[in-house]
Amino acid sequence: MAKVSLVMGSISDWPTMQLAAAQLTALGIEYERHVISAHRMPDTLQQYGQQAAERGLQVIIAGAGGAAHLPGMLAANTVLPVIGVPIQSKALNGMDSLLSIVQMPGGVPVATMAIGNAGATNAALMAAQILGLHDQNIQQAVLEFRQQQRQEAEQSEHQF
Amino acid sequence: MAKVSLVMGSISDWPTMQLAAAQLTALGIEYERHVISAHRMPDTLQQYGQQAAERGLQVIIAGAGGAAHLPGMLAANTVLPVIGVPIQSKALNGMDSLLSIVQMPGGVPVATMAIGNAGATNAALMAAQILGLHDQNIQQAVLEFRQQQRQEAEQSEHQF
Amino acid sequence: MAKVSLVMGSISDWPTMQLAAAQLTALGIEYERHVISAHRMPDTLQQYGQQAAERGLQVIIAGAGGAAHLPGMLAANTVLPVIGVPIQSKALNGMDSLLSIVQMPGGVPVATMAIGNAGATNAALMAAQILGLHDQNIQQAVLEFRQQQRQEAEQSEHQF
Amino acid sequence: MAKVSLVMGSISDWPTMQLAAAQLTALGIEYERHVISAHRMPDTLQQYGQQAAERGLQVIIAGAGGAAHLPGMLAANTVLPVIGVPIQSKALNGMDSLLSIVQMPGGVPVATMAIGNAGATNAALMAAQILGLHDQNIQQAVLEFRQQQRQEAEQSEHQF
Amino acid sequence: MAKVSLVMGSISDWPTMQLAAAQLTALGIEYERHVISAHRMPDTLQQYGQQAAERGLQVIIAGAGGAAHLPGMLAANTVLPVIGVPIQSKALNGMDSLLSIVQMPGGVPVATMAIGNAGATNAALMAAQILGLHDQNIQQAVLEFRQQQRQEAEQSEHQF
Amino acid sequence: MAKVSLVMGSISDWPTMQLAAAQLTALGIEYERHVISAHRMPDTLQQYGQQAAERGLQVIIAGAGGAAHLPGMLAANTVLPVIGVPIQSKALNGMDSLLSIVQMPGGVPVATMAIGNAGATNAALMAAQILGLHDQNIQQAVLEFRQQQRQEAEQSEHQF
Amino acid sequence: MAKVSLVMGSISDWPTMQLAAAQLTALGIEYERHVISAHRMPDTLQQYGQQAAERGLQVIIAGAGGAAHLPGMLAANTVLPVIGVPIQSKALNGMDSLLSIVQMPGGVPVATMAIGNAGATNAALMAAQILGLHDQNIQQAVLEFRQQQRQEAEQSEHQF
Amino acid sequence: MAKVSLVMGSISDWPTMQLAAAQLTALGIEYERHVISAHRMPDTLQQYGQQAAERGLQVIIAGAGGAAHLPGMLAANTVLPVIGVPIQSKALNGMDSLLSIVQMPGGVPVATMAIGNAGATNAALMAAQILGLHDQNIQQAVLEFRQQQRQEAEQSEHQF
Repeated sequence: MAKVSLVMGSISDWPTMQLAAAQLTALGIEYERHVISAHRMPDTLQQYGQQAAERGLQVIIAGAGGAAHLPGMLAANTVLPVIGVPIQSKALNGMDSLLSIVQMPGGVPVATMAIGNAGATNAALMAAQILGLHDQNIQQAVLEFRQQQRQEAEQSEHQF
Repeated sequence: MAKVSLVMGSISDWPTMQLAAAQLTALGIEYERHVISAHRMPDTLQQYGQQAAERGLQVIIAGAGGAAHLPGMLAANTVLPVIGVPIQSKALNGMDSLLSIVQMPGGVPVATMAIGNAGATNAALMAAQILGLHDQNIQQAVLEFRQQQRQEAEQSEHQF
Repeated sequence: MAKVSLVMGSISDWPTMQLAAAQLTALGIEYERHVISAHRMPDTLQQYGQQAAERGLQVIIAGAGGAAHLPGMLAANTVLPVIGVPIQSKALNGMDSLLSIVQMPGGVPVATMAIGNAGATNAALMAAQILGLHDQNIQQAVLEFRQQQRQEAEQSEHQF
Repeated sequence: MAKVSLVMGSISDWPTMQLAAAQLTALGIEYERHVISAHRMPDTLQQYGQQAAERGLQVIIAGAGGAAHLPGMLAANTVLPVIGVPIQSKALNGMDSLLSIVQMPGGVPVATMAIGNAGATNAALMAAQILGLHDQNIQQAVLEFRQQQRQEAEQSEHQF
Repeated sequence: MAKVSLVMGSISDWPTMQLAAAQLTALGIEYERHVISAHRMPDTLQQYGQQAAERGLQVIIAGAGGAAHLPGMLAANTVLPVIGVPIQSKALNGMDSLLSIVQMPGGVPVATMAIGNAGATNAALMAAQILGLHDQNIQQAVLEFRQQQRQEAEQSEHQF
Repeated sequence: MAKVSLVMGSISDWPTMQLAAAQLTALGIEYERHVISAHRMPDTLQQYGQQAAERGLQVIIAGAGGAAHLPGMLAANTVLPVIGVPIQSKALNGMDSLLSIVQMPGGVPVATMAIGNAGATNAALMAAQILGLHDQNIQQAVLEFRQQQRQEAEQSEHQF
Repeated sequence: MAKVSLVMGSISDWPTMQLAAAQLTALGIEYERHVISAHRMPDTLQQYGQQAAERGLQVIIAGAGGAAHLPGMLAANTVLPVIGVPIQSKALNGMDSLLSIVQMPGGVPVATMAIGNAGATNAALMAAQILGLHDQNIQQAVLEFRQQQRQEAEQSEHQF
Repeated sequence: MAKVSLVMGSISDWPTMQLAAAQLTALGIEYERHVISAHRMPDTLQQYGQQAAERGLQVIIAGAGGAAHLPGMLAANTVLPVIGVPIQSKALNGMDSLLSIVQMPGGVPVATMAIGNAGATNAALMAAQILGLHDQNIQQAVLEFRQQQRQEAEQSEHQF
């Protein structure tokens, strides 16, 4: 059973969110993935949120753009930590997505990541760091990923 | 039975939203009013939206601040026109509220007003203009309000 | 006789505004369309606004970019509800268009939509939701459109 | 007969616009002043703009805030140079006023000044610089004002 | 031994961060608290980050303003989840703090909260939701807090 | 002798500023044109500004991008009206250019136009409207240009 | 003879710039100070910049607000390093000052500091760090200041 | 031994930072260059900063994008002047990079340059102006570069 859920507001968010998927896979973390539009499928959203914990999920990653209501509404319907990824929108470059996700009122937090691709990758890592608190394999995978990143950065000097 | 609903995400939005209430009253339009927090009472929100039309409401005015999800989520749950009022937030002066309300994805519109007091007043007027399409009294009240506004503006020159 | 008017400040807004036109057509709603530049044809604008109600129009959709005065000036000249579509401008990505349309002073509202294509589509839907209050066919068409949108979103999971 | 017109969208703009008035007076330039709301008195605005040139006016200074349509709509109705003053708005600090005034489409310019008090003072000076092209007294008054400003700046070092 | 660490870049951030402290206490969660300036005490920061996991901490909450480097640099030095709170800065209202915290590059995430007080409260709740994945008492405390919030919102209608 | 001066901070501004040149030519107005970099040729700038009036110039149009100091520094050195054109910059889309030009302190105004091409065209029109106060031919040319613009806008409806 | 010059565009900038003065004094660095308005005293500015190096100055600190041309124009007139301090402006909170100072074109740099008080303090420290490259006393004073700052930060934990 | 260090957070910053390298070379200034990621190699960063002065470096140029912590963290670890270059980021065009670099708290300055290419070029020039205070050859090279720039600007008029 997957412990991480990858949800997005539209299939058009997949080119960004697949970076989260790829990072989860690279860390050996199973996930389920869904398109749940906050505005087109509001009852599905609510049901999904309310059942997430009892279904055994531990972390929800939600990506959305524009008036990005998906992460916040999932957070309102579950006690699981919800990680939000602001999709880079067309007109406002994701500033609307960012503010719609991060500026949650006191009471219902969303763990907001950077706009776009970096945010999607980091959502997977944040999920792994949370799961890693009680799963040595995952924590080890994160540490190895970091070590690898460091080596790549160090070796990149050869590209000058 | 009221045809207009005045909803806000928090009682702290009332100092702004009471301008909408006052304007509705001035135009002779009955309304019901509620605090429905999108994040604290998501199922109430959904139920309220889904029953709004059959209960006889015709227009919903929704005010919210920050990651202002209330107007958009109501719009997702009803076929009635929803008018959104961005409350002036503390840190970002309502720019977050505005973008969270106005940048709705294609498919579910929210009729967005100006940030803060002007927006609350105008939400009531927009509701009246919509109702006025089939209610001569209301349309007449709007026209008289406009005439009065015009006279006040003209007479304000005496204050130079 | 058309009940919806589709107006834009320049023919260059048509690539955006045609999405509103297409959505209206898809919902079975007749419309008339015009180019009325607030700055090049101010008296045409005024006359158009002042005659709109008596000509039988019920809703005006107005798209404009930059210092987008068209929606607000039409609203100043009619008691009909005016829906504003901020066109995505070249330099400021439509943030100027959005603020010029949405930040109307208390007294004269414009129902503002999202910047660009989503806003154009939603302007048509908002017009339909307003007309639908007294036209079961239109309201039904909106509901069917939403149902279709929902199905498309649900089926889009096959594209993972 | 006054050659400069001082127009504002609301009497509430007067605390800012009186700085333009004071500066005109200090330079010995007569002016007429009016409250003309673009949204409450659109036909007055149009008539005022269309008659401005034949009435002998040479420059129009127009201050407005929020969705500040007054300067641009006056410019659309006259061939006289129009100087726009963005009033500092409550929520967005005049950024909305600035963009609504300055981002005019090609064809109808508004000579835009800084937001708020500095802009009001400068509107008067710009009007004087334009009139000064054919009026030695006014040009001389501007030069003396500048000389005085310079001396005040130089002497302000005593306040360290 | 505390499982949550509350760190801030300056004692001047305490008026905001004490809301996180109060919320943790309300949920029955112990925490340690420190002032660690990223720019004045960079080696302390590094050492603190590197020892956090082995000292038994599970979540770090870090608040900072302006060029807010503290959360990101802590995240770079630990595999624990780091939650960032953008302090509302004087000139830019916390927009600088927000972007400095949230726009982390791919590889090192910071779970970013809203600007200011709401963000501080939510940081504590997010920490609790993470700890609650393996601590029924804490998860229960979060659920009760939410229930209480909901009741307060519902009862706030009496204040109309 | 030319009455209008067209100055830009860099030859790279010419693709924008040539729209001002073309518009001046279309209105039958002679102009001189120069590249004067405020930062590379500060003494040339000063000399040019100080001699502009005595050389018979009446209006200066200055285009610049980024920290666009040229228009303001020319204005500081002449009593002629200076019209500023914010060039669309690479990173910030001309928002930096706009603020650097428009936010002049009280005492030295710059008549600021829209960002980019529209601003360049409008700078020429504003210059013409100023010159037209004492030159019937130019005023007539502006009126004819407007009439032509109007006709083009009206006829553009055939392009639907 | 002072090696550091403290210049500001207006005496109204002194409440901010005196923090730079105080910091210089605390580090034992002499300075001269002047009000030089880029727009009111452009020739003084130019002369001051051109003579700065030969007069023995080594670093210029320049504070200005709004369309803040002073730092950039001084930089254009001297080969000495110029440090810019964006004064917090009234309407736009210093964002205009910041962009006008920092967005210099390639060729003429200004070393830009933070908006307002922090920037003024840091301008003095940057000047000291530059002078400290060839003055052990100054470098030592900076190191001691940092040590003191660190101790204050560490001891501030007693204020919890 | 190089007196200037060119550091960047990622090899992907090299297309921008190579303009700094080219400018240093053109001025006859040796430099060393490194990729040091603040988030992937935080201890390398710290060590590099702490050893920079004793290794004989005099100026550090640091380029970074997004939540750009590299310049500020280097500044926190050295008494040498640090020049920051905000890399133009994908979503927010470098506004995030700029604010993360420039908004340093009082106590630890970063000499911030313009976003992107102009900033990289100017970082090299600022380094040269600092070194030039005690190296006549470098100061002379800067003066010649400026003279050349001026000539190129003057001659660019032939390209009209």
